[in-house]
Amino acid sequence: MKKAILIIQCPDQKGIVAAVSQFLFKYDGNILEVDQHVDEEMGMFFMRAAWEFESLSLPKDEIASRFEEEVGASFGMSFKLHFNFPKPRMALFVSKLSHCLFDILARHHAGQLDMDIPLVISNHPDLKQVVESFGIPYVHLPVTKENKAEVEACQLELLEENKIDFIVLARYMQILSSKLIEQFPNRIINIHHSFLPAFVGAKPYHAAYERGVKIIGATAHYVTEELDAGPIIEQDVARVRHHNTVPELVQIGQDVEKVVLSKAIKYHLDRKVLVVNNKTVIFY
Amino acid sequence: MKKAILIIQCPDQKGIVAAVSQFLFKYDGNILEVDQHVDEEMGMFFMRAAWEFESLSLPKDEIASRFEEEVGASFGMSFKLHFNFPKPRMALFVSKLSHCLFDILARHHAGQLDMDIPLVISNHPDLKQVVESFGIPYVHLPVTKENKAEVEACQLELLEENKIDFIVLARYMQILSSKLIEQFPNRIINIHHSFLPAFVGAKPYHAAYERGVKIIGATAHYVTEELDAGPIIEQDVARVRHHNTVPELVQIGQDVEKVVLSKAIKYHLDRKVLVVNNKTVIFY
Amino acid sequence: MKKAILIIQCPDQKGIVAAVSQFLFKYDGNILEVDQHVDEEMGMFFMRAAWEFESLSLPKDEIASRFEEEVGASFGMSFKLHFNFPKPRMALFVSKLSHCLFDILARHHAGQLDMDIPLVISNHPDLKQVVESFGIPYVHLPVTKENKAEVEACQLELLEENKIDFIVLARYMQILSSKLIEQFPNRIINIHHSFLPAFVGAKPYHAAYERGVKIIGATAHYVTEELDAGPIIEQDVARVRHHNTVPELVQIGQDVEKVVLSKAIKYHLDRKVLVVNNKTVIFY
Amino acid sequence: MKKAILIIQCPDQKGIVAAVSQFLFKYDGNILEVDQHVDEEMGMFFMRAAWEFESLSLPKDEIASRFEEEVGASFGMSFKLHFNFPKPRMALFVSKLSHCLFDILARHHAGQLDMDIPLVISNHPDLKQVVESFGIPYVHLPVTKENKAEVEACQLELLEENKIDFIVLARYMQILSSKLIEQFPNRIINIHHSFLPAFVGAKPYHAAYERGVKIIGATAHYVTEELDAGPIIEQDVARVRHHNTVPELVQIGQDVEKVVLSKAIKYHLDRKVLVVNNKTVIFY
Repeated sequence: MKKAILIIQCPDQKGIVAAVSQFLFKYDGNILEVDQHVDEEMGMFFMRAAWEFESLSLPKDEIASRFEEEVGASFGMSFKLHFNFPKPRMALFVSKLSHCLFDILARHHAGQLDMDIPLVISNHPDLKQVVESFGIPYVHLPVTKENKAEVEACQLELLEENKIDFIVLARYMQILSSKLIEQFPNRIINIHHSFLPAFVGAKPYHAAYERGVKIIGATAHYVTEELDAGPIIEQDVARVRHHNTVPELVQIGQDVEKVVLSKAIKYHLDRKVLVVNNKTVIFY
Repeated sequence: MKKAILIIQCPDQKGIVAAVSQFLFKYDGNILEVDQHVDEEMGMFFMRAAWEFESLSLPKDEIASRFEEEVGASFGMSFKLHFNFPKPRMALFVSKLSHCLFDILARHHAGQLDMDIPLVISNHPDLKQVVESFGIPYVHLPVTKENKAEVEACQLELLEENKIDFIVLARYMQILSSKLIEQFPNRIINIHHSFLPAFVGAKPYHAAYERGVKIIGATAHYVTEELDAGPIIEQDVARVRHHNTVPELVQIGQDVEKVVLSKAIKYHLDRKVLVVNNKTVIFY
Repeated sequence: MKKAILIIQCPDQKGIVAAVSQFLFKYDGNILEVDQHVDEEMGMFFMRAAWEFESLSLPKDEIASRFEEEVGASFGMSFKLHFNFPKPRMALFVSKLSHCLFDILARHHAGQLDMDIPLVISNHPDLKQVVESFGIPYVHLPVTKENKAEVEACQLELLEENKIDFIVLARYMQILSSKLIEQFPNRIINIHHSFLPAFVGAKPYHAAYERGVKIIGATAHYVTEELDAGPIIEQDVARVRHHNTVPELVQIGQDVEKVVLSKAIKYHLDRKVLVVNNKTVIFY
Repeated sequence: MKKAILIIQCPDQKGIVAAVSQFLFKYDGNILEVDQHVDEEMGMFFMRAAWEFESLSLPKDEIASRFEEEVGASFGMSFKLHFNFPKPRMALFVSKLSHCLFDILARHHAGQLDMDIPLVISNHPDLKQVVESFGIPYVHLPVTKENKAEVEACQLELLEENKIDFIVLARYMQILSSKLIEQFPNRIINIHHSFLPAFVGAKPYHAAYERGVKIIGATAHYVTEELDAGPIIEQDVARVRHHNTVPELVQIGQDVEKVVLSKAIKYHLDRKVLVVNNKTVIFY
């Protein structure tokens, strides 16, 4: 179904829900989902409303201006209007590990993720055959210390050519440049293989083993300048025991990673994520 | 804070959210929480709205009639208006097992449960001392096959005298009569020591042991005529292993039971539970 | 590493651990894993011991007879000796749903499952391309009421030809004949899409929706004559909410199904499962 | 039942299980539980064996020396012999928060924790009445910057007088002196209200709120010199959402804290915890 989705934030005050729902009612919008949240500490109001696109008696390109005029302006709203068509275009960055890649491709194949995957970019050739068997182009761009800047320029070009909307790092293992991050603010999703903020950085399973934790986890977050410190979208955990070796932690953890990453992609696709102060509101 | 809470159900149609929020805005109501849910299969709309009682510029006893007149009637709404004052009065029914009782008393003592507990009724004397050390009267009414009707008459009298709003069966182990159940529709909460609908009836831990399940659970539900078949309010589970004996299952399960029951009481107190077709909507 | 694995059961008595470990010590066996369990109700002792195959100073085909003579006979032991070589050969039965299939193929591809998959059998053609892209033969055998017996004869022949050790029903959706089940006792693993024994039979997600449970689950079990009543190998659950539709329950549940099934396959491959009285002992 | 428990560690080599089980068999010991674990990285073998005390045909005070002579010496073993009688004596340190205290007292009252609680020590008077209603002495020792050393001397005296075996800090909120910690190595259990190593130090719920994590947790650990860095005994987690305020996180977390702490006490009482390299082996 064609949907329009409105994400709103503004200082909290009386009458916001009334005004927004009145606007949609006035133009015959058939509301599908509404969720709102007040952060009392910040005194801010957040809202997500989705409606059947076809039901609204306003041309697509007039909705935003009318809403601003009739509702937004008087409440000092900052809002974004999204549509679930055309489908979002995702680029996948991978390295050698296949578990997250397979999980995403399998879900996409089963019709669970409403998006296009125009390309997969990798610094290794290992997963080429798998990706291509799904009919998706695989671009192998080996990264070395020397050619990092060059490779990234090439990546940026590919992203632009392919009109990429957002990027998923499915265990890509390389740190992105500021330039790339700036071009995709809150539009690069990374899966970190620990329960952040525990075990930031490289080799978190080794660190978890060293510390002797009884539970390990995984965290999907938007990528920001500071490593592993971006807004958390989703997390989950699994229980481990003292006799588990590092390779066993890795295997247990990978089951968590892939489910967490796919959930984060789903939230992002459904426009259910709002970033405020380096934290996420996940609407229902 | 003094709150008013409105629970609404009606056939789904456009404009409901707008009308309700408009009503509250008109009378200066400061909305604290709103959650709505559409059951597409039934074509029904459900909503819960809570506001700061003092902010609404309507006398307490006029709110319902005004709402019916201005909003409810035109949408064919069925609604209930609740206030979180005076505090709800809960009667606890217990038997010999103390884990749920202690958990409820400890939370009440810590100020987590906004209610009064005018009395505890039990068919055994064992927990008398514990209950009285919390300053709560303990009524010991031994139940036998012969005196069951008589005891229940006595219980009903006590419930009336103490103006009881709802009953919690904290592992009471006795089946209530239809008469008692009818007097407290969706106002008697029971904790069943299995993950319903698995292991209905007596000795669920023994049944779980026999079947060799890898996970056990507990279920809080409203009591209805049919045993263990009432609307489920909350459930949770815990992992067990083949070497766990029945007494170990009991101990592992009790930790789940007490948390599940206390959550259900909290939802009930906060007026977050709506029963529809023997199922519950749990509002946020 | 080449391993030998011994699974023992016998009436409980003093000295069993001493005798078994003494036997392995005598022949220089390098023990890798030992786990034992006493079921006090049955008065039975269960043990699993794995050792480095190469370390034991006994020819492969003499181990069992020597152990019987020197240890087993005097304790009235019933035991089985397994080796992790050659690799076990698994046949996959699938229908139209791809989530479990993909998960198994992806893990196999990543080297996590130490087995061969000589063939996939399906009553539908849908997943042919996926399976073949992994280089595995896909046999399409459409099942109708009329040809059921014939198809099963054909399946049995294929299983024999391919020297299949065990079968995994990855959401196969067809009930197997007694004949097939008898030929693979405790060697057919099925994934049932509910937390058994709740919601036995067809359409468990619909039944879960109807009952209004707050948690759904999945169960991997060995197939026996009685439907969904075989020994449970592994289970897990996921939390759901009242607003989840049946299709949403399906999607949430599929994530649980695939992880549970893959864990059960892993336990089976590692010879960690012992079936006693229609229940499983899962050794460490 | 009277039990003896042997905890062993030594360099890994062939024949250890055989030798230990042979020793117990020789003296008629009826083995109740055995668990062993090899840490391949360290090349170390760990074992826990429990037997019915009465069954062993050796005087209580000769067991250790005989075992050393007949088994321990030749394998270079370091071992400890424990008995579950007389009951261990635990001192509880509390502050103002009652949830962990109540949970422990309730379990003790229900006979789940096989120990004596000779006294509760607190820096606040708040929980005096609760504790005394369980018939346990409550010592109120207010701590200020000025009297800290004096109070601790007093505490040490009380611990000695009462022959305390181990201490549980049930949200005590004060940092213990090195002197106290040294006197109770791996015998002081603390509950930290975060999923360590995330959110070390004060106010972890505030820190979790700030970071926007989707899951919070609790950690029971032995107290060492370094704050919140001691060996982890048990951990668990609970899911939270963006709309949860800090007080809500506190309430959700307290349910986790109390269960985790009680599990850790149970493991400690059952002599199932072995500390190696600042990590714990938790035997079955």
